[in-house]
Amino acid sequence: MKNYFKSIAFLLLVVPMFLFAEEAATVANPAEETAKAIQTLTVGLDTLWVLVAGMLVFFMNAGFALVESGFAQSKNTVNILAKNFIVFAAATFSYWAIGWGLMFGDGTPFYAKDGIFFLTGLDNSPALGDDYKGVYSSMNWTGVPLLAKFFFQLVFAATAATIVSGAVAERIKFHSFLIFSFILVAVMYPFTGHWVWGGGWLAELGFHDFAGSTVVHSVGGWAALAGAIVLGARKGKFLPDGRIKPILGHNMTSAALGTLILWLGWFGFNPGSTMGVGDGVTMAHVIVTTNISAALGALASTVTAWIILKKPDLGMILNGTLAGLVGITAPCAIVSPTSAAIIGAVSGVLVVLSVLFFDKIKIDDPVGATSVHLVCGIWGTLAVAIFGYEGSPAGVDVPSILTQLYGILAIGGFTFVVSLALWFVLKLAGGIRVSEEEELSGLDLGEHGAEAYPDFNIRVRG
Amino acid sequence: MKNYFKSIAFLLLVVPMFLFAEEAATVANPAEETAKAIQTLTVGLDTLWVLVAGMLVFFMNAGFALVESGFAQSKNTVNILAKNFIVFAAATFSYWAIGWGLMFGDGTPFYAKDGIFFLTGLDNSPALGDDYKGVYSSMNWTGVPLLAKFFFQLVFAATAATIVSGAVAERIKFHSFLIFSFILVAVMYPFTGHWVWGGGWLAELGFHDFAGSTVVHSVGGWAALAGAIVLGARKGKFLPDGRIKPILGHNMTSAALGTLILWLGWFGFNPGSTMGVGDGVTMAHVIVTTNISAALGALASTVTAWIILKKPDLGMILNGTLAGLVGITAPCAIVSPTSAAIIGAVSGVLVVLSVLFFDKIKIDDPVGATSVHLVCGIWGTLAVAIFGYEGSPAGVDVPSILTQLYGILAIGGFTFVVSLALWFVLKLAGGIRVSEEEELSGLDLGEHGAEAYPDFNIRVRG
Amino acid sequence: MKNYFKSIAFLLLVVPMFLFAEEAATVANPAEETAKAIQTLTVGLDTLWVLVAGMLVFFMNAGFALVESGFAQSKNTVNILAKNFIVFAAATFSYWAIGWGLMFGDGTPFYAKDGIFFLTGLDNSPALGDDYKGVYSSMNWTGVPLLAKFFFQLVFAATAATIVSGAVAERIKFHSFLIFSFILVAVMYPFTGHWVWGGGWLAELGFHDFAGSTVVHSVGGWAALAGAIVLGARKGKFLPDGRIKPILGHNMTSAALGTLILWLGWFGFNPGSTMGVGDGVTMAHVIVTTNISAALGALASTVTAWIILKKPDLGMILNGTLAGLVGITAPCAIVSPTSAAIIGAVSGVLVVLSVLFFDKIKIDDPVGATSVHLVCGIWGTLAVAIFGYEGSPAGVDVPSILTQLYGILAIGGFTFVVSLALWFVLKLAGGIRVSEEEELSGLDLGEHGAEAYPDFNIRVRG
Repeated sequence: MKNYFKSIAFLLLVVPMFLFAEEAATVANPAEETAKAIQTLTVGLDTLWVLVAGMLVFFMNAGFALVESGFAQSKNTVNILAKNFIVFAAATFSYWAIGWGLMFGDGTPFYAKDGIFFLTGLDNSPALGDDYKGVYSSMNWTGVPLLAKFFFQLVFAATAATIVSGAVAERIKFHSFLIFSFILVAVMYPFTGHWVWGGGWLAELGFHDFAGSTVVHSVGGWAALAGAIVLGARKGKFLPDGRIKPILGHNMTSAALGTLILWLGWFGFNPGSTMGVGDGVTMAHVIVTTNISAALGALASTVTAWIILKKPDLGMILNGTLAGLVGITAPCAIVSPTSAAIIGAVSGVLVVLSVLFFDKIKIDDPVGATSVHLVCGIWGTLAVAIFGYEGSPAGVDVPSILTQLYGILAIGGFTFVVSLALWFVLKLAGGIRVSEEEELSGLDLGEHGAEAYPDFNIRVRG
Repeated sequence: MKNYFKSIAFLLLVVPMFLFAEEAATVANPAEETAKAIQTLTVGLDTLWVLVAGMLVFFMNAGFALVESGFAQSKNTVNILAKNFIVFAAATFSYWAIGWGLMFGDGTPFYAKDGIFFLTGLDNSPALGDDYKGVYSSMNWTGVPLLAKFFFQLVFAATAATIVSGAVAERIKFHSFLIFSFILVAVMYPFTGHWVWGGGWLAELGFHDFAGSTVVHSVGGWAALAGAIVLGARKGKFLPDGRIKPILGHNMTSAALGTLILWLGWFGFNPGSTMGVGDGVTMAHVIVTTNISAALGALASTVTAWIILKKPDLGMILNGTLAGLVGITAPCAIVSPTSAAIIGAVSGVLVVLSVLFFDKIKIDDPVGATSVHLVCGIWGTLAVAIFGYEGSPAGVDVPSILTQLYGILAIGGFTFVVSLALWFVLKLAGGIRVSEEEELSGLDLGEHGAEAYPDFNIRVRG
Repeated sequence: MKNYFKSIAFLLLVVPMFLFAEEAATVANPAEETAKAIQTLTVGLDTLWVLVAGMLVFFMNAGFALVESGFAQSKNTVNILAKNFIVFAAATFSYWAIGWGLMFGDGTPFYAKDGIFFLTGLDNSPALGDDYKGVYSSMNWTGVPLLAKFFFQLVFAATAATIVSGAVAERIKFHSFLIFSFILVAVMYPFTGHWVWGGGWLAELGFHDFAGSTVVHSVGGWAALAGAIVLGARKGKFLPDGRIKPILGHNMTSAALGTLILWLGWFGFNPGSTMGVGDGVTMAHVIVTTNISAALGALASTVTAWIILKKPDLGMILNGTLAGLVGITAPCAIVSPTSAAIIGAVSGVLVVLSVLFFDKIKIDDPVGATSVHLVCGIWGTLAVAIFGYEGSPAGVDVPSILTQLYGILAIGGFTFVVSLALWFVLKLAGGIRVSEEEELSGLDLGEHGAEAYPDFNIRVRG
């Protein structure tokens, strides 16, 4: 009998439901609501990851500040810390004002044209692919709000400027560095970045750089190299008799902590470049390749330094770690963990040889920024073609080594030439180097009228 | 023929499904299961964000410890580090024991009455809105478990106490500070917090303070000001001839690292105050306004210091950054990025002027905590009314400047008067200031029998 | 009339839908798509949390490096920092090469047999439970990709090795430590880990250790104790007349910052051991119990030190915090917040007494690693049985105290005996202790030819 009443109920309830289908739909459409809830969850989850990854990359500012000041002399500590602070603050403004637009605005394969200033272009993010309507269409593959895209790209842009800081440390004028950094982040970095991540001609060519071995690190490295050349070496580094005097870093605790913070930050830099979570497989793959490359970089540089310098040099261990991280930045999503180990090990050897090489040709880079970011940035970009496999989490075809070389040369050539020119212009317009006296007594007193450690007895090295 | 069998199958399978609808429901109801899965995912995602944000705010303890000890003399380092550690430990206990309940327990618009002690009130979180049954109904707008709400609010409460630590540094007795902090976190902070975030009379009035420029920062600032007044200045700060002797911080590496850790922590403090992810738009908006305000605070304080003090002073750059962060804390979700830039720039100017002003009126605040947290906390709360726009991610009406002033005065008045009274009571009951000898030789030896840097040659300043 | 057409539409549209059900299914099956989307979201969310938690645990390397170097003399700083770096790099390689497989490979209850090397075993993660097909079936309860499981377990394994570093500091040869660490992470730690987390005989017995008070911390502690015994005390620690000379740490800023970083890292260590988000309740519970135990550990050690040593000793406050964290690691998901407070308070008292006890029996552990990780690791494992309640978030039966004792003794006995043997073998094969001269002048010069702070006037203590 119970079933009989159920049949009646069915007729009374379900059949009219169909007859009044339209009304029912406006009252409640569970399928649509479910789809919308899933969409909101997906966007929310992806945004959470992009923002957390951006925070990790932001925290790399602390890493750079500590590595750089730790590797420098105590008399220049305040100056280096102030530089690192201000460079991120200025980058925030300049990338918001113009950099983002120049990098991701729609335009030609060579430069952006739309939505250049202050994020004012049309944009209906988080709409994806064909649903996307706006002027930043090269970023329409990631379903997060515009401001999340901006924040993540901003912290990347600032990294490029910070790399320069190390190579020009201990002798550059504060305001010269500020002006150079501002222009680097506002114009130069976004200009070449547009070619790759902004959907420009290198992207069309199939050039692959997942998280920026070239787009970020070697750009910073080329600008740093130009600066180190134009500035010249620190007084007392290269002696008249041909000997090279090592200028020791004043605080290895700072340098080591800074390197660990950078390692942590790279877990945002590389896995965060997925700019979404998906099924988590790419994130997990990238974090493991990143970590293995860093570890093998540390081990290989330790062994290399032990052989060449007869001691497991801590400075080399730290730079070897960073070398492994820079090396895996381009290929992290397109290579296997085993390839990552090889890429990291090669980076660790390369960085030691490179530091010795730059000393030999008398280019003075106090923290080894050029060796880490430029040399290993190039190596990592080539490694994409050497170790990449089809069907990798990157989801792209493996480019030829020629394609990768194209990108390296085009971006490197542009950045190096424009940087050289800019450093020369700044040099002519008032000079970029502090006076010899100020260099000897330290930039802290000269530029800031301050000491980093006023309670401590410091031996100022001449 | 195939279709014919399908019709049969339909009759055999689907029709009985309707007839046995009730039984079927208990066996499997996909729609309900889907809804439940989505609900679990939403709660899980929101909880993950609230906890990660809480961790970032927790890490601000390291930032405060480093900024404060870095800005102080080396002879007081152990004392300051110990104070910062113990204040968070004590806050954990006192906010769990009574603070949470006094802040979020149901009651009158002026004070809480239910579920005061040890989180023991009824609560069916993560149920939302009308589904919520419990005694902490002012928090029923966020769908996370009770313990996640507690953890996030706890790390906020501890911040208020830590702010005080800086202003009273280098001369306060260890146990006096502990007692004051305990009472601040247990009673004073939750009492006024109830008026705003606990659904009290200021909330009803429309007072808006998204993440606590007033509720957290100016409360800490008022308590700090009261302490600095009752304690008096450090020996040797204000000379008899009217000159002001700067007492330099002993470790600018610490101060700079600490500020960057605080900046990072603020990405939990402000965006985390969404207490949920939703579609990510509010989170992304808040992180961008927060970052822009901090950057402009740093730039504006650099310029202001360069003009007034003739040098880009690192201490001012760091305090300018923190000023920008405090200033944007109340309005971060109700203002545009452009407004955030203005709010930050004004904060950066204000903090430099304020530090000079407090020196002028001979109130000695070793780290500038009052200028950063009180002055810019007030400014940020007013900025809500000045720059807020309707339809912002905050989802509230823009309050009038009078409403905001009401809140500032009510909370400030209460906190300042009660703090003054409490400091005086502590002063009468045994004294709150160390002996002159101990102050000269340092609190590390006097209070802890220890040195922070026993291997280093330290010049103890008298 | 409208309804009439609807009836027609129903017949024309819906009825054929049933008749062509199979075709319809292949064209579009919303329910299946929804289920798949929810599955992807769940895996993605869980993976995000596991990776972020792993990053936090990774960052504990910075915490250990700072705590250990801060508590040691400045002349050994470079050595300690280098050791901490290299130990994580080596652990990455060895745990990838063999450690993971030995811990989680299927096999007997006593040891693993399948998929030992380089993660090469079959595995269809994130499939769960019975759907899982692979050789790492003891990890089939967490629905994240294999590489996410690996990363999280790797950072745990490295922790065990890092613990050893502190106890053998200031006198061990660099390469001896490296070899020991490599074998610990590659073989010893995974061997006993298999018994508990790899589904081995202790797991079958009901032994419960949520995040590793025994599996990680006391394993590190036993290996550390063995090392400290075989190495002997530092010169000048135990004087011939029976007095004990405290050898002060050179940088309390480092030690305090390191402890706060470890506290932060523990929010990955304990709540991350959920290896998934679910409805967030377990995560929130575990973060609160972890934090309360740490806070009460800090408070209890402060009071204990104040009573016994007459001063609130900062070193004891820091070790008390770490003691509270180690103590709650096993029981964090099976005890209430109130029990967590008791567990933390007991840990804080225990660690002070233990440090004094090890000094008394002339075992020299420069940073108190044995007291923190071994003594409180044992206490925490017992606390599972004492304070555990049925129906806790851990979702397991409360084991008897005998079961817990079994696990402590079996794992401790194995690790201590094998460690002792290994240290002795290394001692015979070339020695593990630096020369007396090198110990006096510092390992930085002897092992690395470097100084940590070359600009500072350092008093090298003999």
